[in-house]
Amino acid sequence: MPHIDIKSPAPGIRGLFEFRPETAGPLGLLAETLLRGPSTLTVGERELIAATVSRGNECTFCSLSHGAAAAAALDDGTQVVEATWRGVDEAPVSAKLRALLRIALAARETGKAVTTELVDAAKELGATDTEIHDTVLIAAAFCMYNRYVDGLATVASPDLADYEEAGRQLIEHGYLRLGGGGTLAS
Amino acid sequence: MPHIDIKSPAPGIRGLFEFRPETAGPLGLLAETLLRGPSTLTVGERELIAATVSRGNECTFCSLSHGAAAAAALDDGTQVVEATWRGVDEAPVSAKLRALLRIALAARETGKAVTTELVDAAKELGATDTEIHDTVLIAAAFCMYNRYVDGLATVASPDLADYEEAGRQLIEHGYLRLGGGGTLAS
Repeated sequence: MPHIDIKSPAPGIRGLFEFRPETAGPLGLLAETLLRGPSTLTVGERELIAATVSRGNECTFCSLSHGAAAAAALDDGTQVVEATWRGVDEAPVSAKLRALLRIALAARETGKAVTTELVDAAKELGATDTEIHDTVLIAAAFCMYNRYVDGLATVASPDLADYEEAGRQLIEHGYLRLGGGGTLAS
Repeated sequence: MPHIDIKSPAPGIRGLFEFRPETAGPLGLLAETLLRGPSTLTVGERELIAATVSRGNECTFCSLSHGAAAAAALDDGTQVVEATWRGVDEAPVSAKLRALLRIALAARETGKAVTTELVDAAKELGATDTEIHDTVLIAAAFCMYNRYVDGLATVASPDLADYEEAGRQLIEHGYLRLGGGGTLAS
């Protein structure tokens, strides 16, 4: 049961977005920008980074939601997600993405764990400055979403099958719908 | 020296905002919403939560930036910030805010560290559901900002005096200016 009366049966971050639409807007917009905005990393690669960081933080709702989204977006996606979660060295992805996943898992621990060695290894495999920037920020953002979801003790099914349809919806429609349809006008 | 060529001498998150304006928009908007938006917590109370979480994460730029902002917003602000950083039990703030700071420091560790006992203690001292929600989300958000700033090895002065003017500016003008003036149109 959530720590606060969110007045919604929706699981995970969805119930919190209904409880506090003022913060749902920027949170949904940030997820959309990071995971769906223009990038040389594919949607599936970015969802895999998000899901793997969330798995490291033991956040059931976020890891299964984004694991399902990554599985829907990547070829042989379910196998890729499961192998990556057993360990980045086993991930059947490009060497560059494995190097970026190592950066993401370091940032999950603490910012200072992202060493020059980890960054140089990714650069040598062709990662651009923007890809390294976005990897660190996706990892950092999921350290926020994970703490938000679990810090308020929201409910979440532990069964991946319960997330598959929502994962496909996230790939098709993105995150703005969840955050109240917010867009950035500057 | 930052891990990537951000092409800006601006310290901390400011240089990253110049490097990647696409993500600066949502990040600035989130900070503005959490720290300046409508709330029954004062600006100074929210900045103190942000600064104390950042201090726990040993993020020089964020702790001193938001410490300076809290100091500018609170009565006897510098003393309040310094005492709070020595330990929440010593913080010369309301008992309710001390209970909220304990929730924030738990969320800093991991979401699951926010226990029913910590939440009930805050509720008994008058904290509302929305105040508890916002406290967890501010703490979670600074776990993101801190990892972003340090994960890319941005530069930051270790001297609080270097942040005092910027802290006053943050109190006067808020965060949208930093994120490119983004606003949320839904």
